[in-house]
Amino acid sequence: MLLLTKKDIINIFSMKEAIEADKEALKMYNEGKTNIPLRVNIDIPKYKGQSLFMPGYAEAMDVTGIKIVSVFPNNIEKGKPSVPAKMLLLDGETGEVISIMDGTYLTQLRTGAVAGAATDILANKNAKKMALFGTGGQAPSQLEAVLAVRDIEIVKVFDINKERAEEFAKSMQEQLKSYGATILAAESMEDALEDADVITTVTTSKRPVFDGKLVKKGAHINGIGAYTPEMQEIDEYIIKNCDKLFVDTKHGVLSEAGDLIIPINKGIISEDKVSGELGEVIIGKVLGRENEKEITVFKSVGSAILDVVTAYKIYEKAKELKVGFEFDI
Amino acid sequence: MLLLTKKDIINIFSMKEAIEADKEALKMYNEGKTNIPLRVNIDIPKYKGQSLFMPGYAEAMDVTGIKIVSVFPNNIEKGKPSVPAKMLLLDGETGEVISIMDGTYLTQLRTGAVAGAATDILANKNAKKMALFGTGGQAPSQLEAVLAVRDIEIVKVFDINKERAEEFAKSMQEQLKSYGATILAAESMEDALEDADVITTVTTSKRPVFDGKLVKKGAHINGIGAYTPEMQEIDEYIIKNCDKLFVDTKHGVLSEAGDLIIPINKGIISEDKVSGELGEVIIGKVLGRENEKEITVFKSVGSAILDVVTAYKIYEKAKELKVGFEFDI
Repeated sequence: MLLLTKKDIINIFSMKEAIEADKEALKMYNEGKTNIPLRVNIDIPKYKGQSLFMPGYAEAMDVTGIKIVSVFPNNIEKGKPSVPAKMLLLDGETGEVISIMDGTYLTQLRTGAVAGAATDILANKNAKKMALFGTGGQAPSQLEAVLAVRDIEIVKVFDINKERAEEFAKSMQEQLKSYGATILAAESMEDALEDADVITTVTTSKRPVFDGKLVKKGAHINGIGAYTPEMQEIDEYIIKNCDKLFVDTKHGVLSEAGDLIIPINKGIISEDKVSGELGEVIIGKVLGRENEKEITVFKSVGSAILDVVTAYKIYEKAKELKVGFEFDI
Repeated sequence: MLLLTKKDIINIFSMKEAIEADKEALKMYNEGKTNIPLRVNIDIPKYKGQSLFMPGYAEAMDVTGIKIVSVFPNNIEKGKPSVPAKMLLLDGETGEVISIMDGTYLTQLRTGAVAGAATDILANKNAKKMALFGTGGQAPSQLEAVLAVRDIEIVKVFDINKERAEEFAKSMQEQLKSYGATILAAESMEDALEDADVITTVTTSKRPVFDGKLVKKGAHINGIGAYTPEMQEIDEYIIKNCDKLFVDTKHGVLSEAGDLIIPINKGIISEDKVSGELGEVIIGKVLGRENEKEITVFKSVGSAILDVVTAYKIYEKAKELKVGFEFDI
């Protein structure tokens, strides 16, 4: 059994590799080569927490996995992570547990990577400006994922707390300097949005975080936060008026994401507004962007298959490079 | 995260402790202080295998756990275990994974222990002779569990393959000599059954392995194998004519165990034949044995709560004795 820490993963696995892993995962999903059972939730009202068990199987890679994620907001007061997570891999040919790795960083990586994949597939090639809404735990990998697929020159970061946006921009400018982009806090929502080619929202907001009428022609939007039916970070105007609307999985987004559920319930759009799943674009079943003027939207709530495939790619590379700690139980 | 091997568990945790852990687990279950979601199965037809994920939560102990068990019969040809298993524990207060341990030995231990608990609660105090049907992977702990709760003088082991029974008896005589019982291969089914006070069946048979009419008054029977609706190791005669019939969980036994499902479907008994769950006897809600003449039957198919509670007791003892390997991911 190979034990892999966050540090091990950072040392051997890049965002570009994670993006390719997510593309492969979505491709397999759309080819019907995966099995993703319903996740199991155990509620722990006593401590206002919840432990989630998310299994999945990728037939073509002969690997099964399960991510164990707990959501315990009160952990913060105890000086512990509020969303601790671990990922386990099982050999698909023998059923043996072959690896356990940090699931928190894996989640950040695969969630960044799926927006990176969408941006790579859907955004205009010459995209230069990115607007980022949100500065929480998932924001750094969201930023890096877009930088990894487009030659972004300037990033404007917006947060309702301007100071947080400034701190985040400063820290990211240092951390991601190899990409050569200038990362700044936005003065306002309008400042962030002005001329933005790629817009990524990664918040838990219950109200849209930007004015859809200000989105320029040809922009691509990634909606990554807002993962419950009550949350909504993308303006209904742009959900209705965008040229193409893609999702990671229809099943997941239509049952979990307020960004689509709320306008559907209001009758502003119907489910037909969804152009397709990103994996359908990858396998050539559905057309992606058709010209430079189209506004494209990608909404994601994630899938266990992204975890399984990304984790397995990390495991394979770790074996190859002899990274990690082997321990047989 | 504390890593515990089979050897660690053997070194620190006894069958007697496992029996007490199982009693506590069944008690909590009947007090409504547990949450056992449906297990998740991923079928892997490509390799004729199946990976099972069995989560559970014990509120009173503040612990959540998940056992990951794979059933891959073809592993044998590959020189690998056909039912590899691992057990994970999560702190119920923070959701963090605190331990991963060998799940194969844990399963043997808790499955032996639940029959030990039933024998302790239901068998006559002066039981002297045990009959054991089956010599597979679960048989050693079944034998030890009964020796741990009664002063058994002689054990007769029956297997359709007499040679296997002899080998098993010889090996167990050595391994369990501290209990002071004489362990012998039975000449026949009748020889095993003659005057037996405790009878344990642990086979995957589809036909009853003994003649129920030969069971003596006052005997106690543990039915531990036969865990699918098609398997049946206990004679219908004794299922119908026993004085008391207990189960670990009604839900589990009535949906999985052919020993009850088959006679119910034939109209030989109804569900009312079940006197109650063993935990109901423990909490005093239902009467157990009432006199020395009664024949009692206990049928078990197992429950995730036995794994969670037993594993947590092992974990606590390992922490106390500083056994195991600490590794933070």
